[in-house]
Amino acid sequence: MLIIGERINSSRTPIADAISSRNAGFIQSEAKAQVDAGADYLDVNAGSFIGEEAKHLSWLIEVVQEPTDCPICIDSPDPAVIKSVLPLIKTGVPMINSITLEPARLERILPLIVEYKCKVIGLCQTEDSIAETTEDKVKLAEQLVEKVTASGVLLDDLYIDPLVYPIGTNTESALATLNAIEQIMKQFPGVHTTCGLTNISYGLPNRKLVNRTFLVAAIVRGLDSAIMDPTDKMLYGSLKTALMVMGKDEFCMEYVSAYREGRLE
Amino acid sequence: MLIIGERINSSRTPIADAISSRNAGFIQSEAKAQVDAGADYLDVNAGSFIGEEAKHLSWLIEVVQEPTDCPICIDSPDPAVIKSVLPLIKTGVPMINSITLEPARLERILPLIVEYKCKVIGLCQTEDSIAETTEDKVKLAEQLVEKVTASGVLLDDLYIDPLVYPIGTNTESALATLNAIEQIMKQFPGVHTTCGLTNISYGLPNRKLVNRTFLVAAIVRGLDSAIMDPTDKMLYGSLKTALMVMGKDEFCMEYVSAYREGRLE
Repeated sequence: MLIIGERINSSRTPIADAISSRNAGFIQSEAKAQVDAGADYLDVNAGSFIGEEAKHLSWLIEVVQEPTDCPICIDSPDPAVIKSVLPLIKTGVPMINSITLEPARLERILPLIVEYKCKVIGLCQTEDSIAETTEDKVKLAEQLVEKVTASGVLLDDLYIDPLVYPIGTNTESALATLNAIEQIMKQFPGVHTTCGLTNISYGLPNRKLVNRTFLVAAIVRGLDSAIMDPTDKMLYGSLKTALMVMGKDEFCMEYVSAYREGRLE
Repeated sequence: MLIIGERINSSRTPIADAISSRNAGFIQSEAKAQVDAGADYLDVNAGSFIGEEAKHLSWLIEVVQEPTDCPICIDSPDPAVIKSVLPLIKTGVPMINSITLEPARLERILPLIVEYKCKVIGLCQTEDSIAETTEDKVKLAEQLVEKVTASGVLLDDLYIDPLVYPIGTNTESALATLNAIEQIMKQFPGVHTTCGLTNISYGLPNRKLVNRTFLVAAIVRGLDSAIMDPTDKMLYGSLKTALMVMGKDEFCMEYVSAYREGRLE
């Protein structure tokens, strides 16, 4: 289970403030907290600084790499921004978050993924539509697999995000995503699936309960990566327990260790 | 989702004490609390009173039926005990917990199920073995379906419990049960599956986290009944949220109602 830590994102006010004021200490404490809590990748995003994204993202990447050698997930839709920050990556295999099936974006980002041997998150989304049904999500996943592997990227480096939309506006939306995860994992052996969790609970009370229940359901259907906050102990506890229930924690050792370290609840 | 409230069980010391001292008020408060929390059936068990089970179970059933008309689940392995208490049932369709494939037990209980038009829980267990693998669980489920329907009981009245064993002693045990639930629900359309939750976490720390995560996983695989404590809000919250995530809560109305009533966490 690959955990992509989502906290260093400029859409969060404390992060935007720390970027503006060049508060490296705050960013580094966020980085370390996520790594200590179990992050395998650190997502970094400066997307709210329009016109200045490359400058701020460069600073973030340099600052985050000082206290940790956790690999970086570059979170930007802009091929030019991605290109300008990729040379700053010091350790590990970088990940790009994300490509879609929009041709302009795809055609400019794919060569960078090949050149820098990156992992990449592919969203089930085209330039003019999102996929709401299982069938549409799987169809777009198939196109992502074709495009990405045709460019020379290994299936093992592709993390497909079938996307989840608020269950409050469409009762079937979470189930469509769960079914898509199962089908994608069966249809393309070797590929990975990932998902952001927060969208699903938009507009509902007790959102964290919904998010972590969805995470368990997705793991049961085969999800093997998540974009999440590993410092949320209830969420992390649900993740570790779901993996144990699915037979992926031999002798329950990871569960018991996480319990002893106070990381489950 | 049929919730069988498990609290009135003589293996719990306060219940055994209340039975011994004929403390009807305590038993009735346990009954009402479970009904208020969402129980569809109230399980009643006096099995720890060896030789006096029938007497105590009769008292329990009469006491429980005073404050509520929630249907009763008669929890006893003994055909004679079941026969003696069945005439006491006043309202609703009684449920028998449980039959197995042990011939002596099965042959004496089945006619009672037919005579009193009961629902019945069938355990995937024979007289001399338990089923640990998915294959064995499904094989025994198939035999239960054959025996029960051959006697004239409707498939809709059979709740198959594939049983779960401690994950701490066998990493694969929960997954075997989850796979069995999915296969049984597919192979015998119309049948139900149920499960007690507490066995799985035996010997592990933070047992309730394991139990509720397993419940979510089982619902994702098709479980449509559980033997559980509905007054455990974290457990009940996981159940309601899992049903919503699986598209079984139109407009999220049940989730939002449960939240407003303070029953989720």
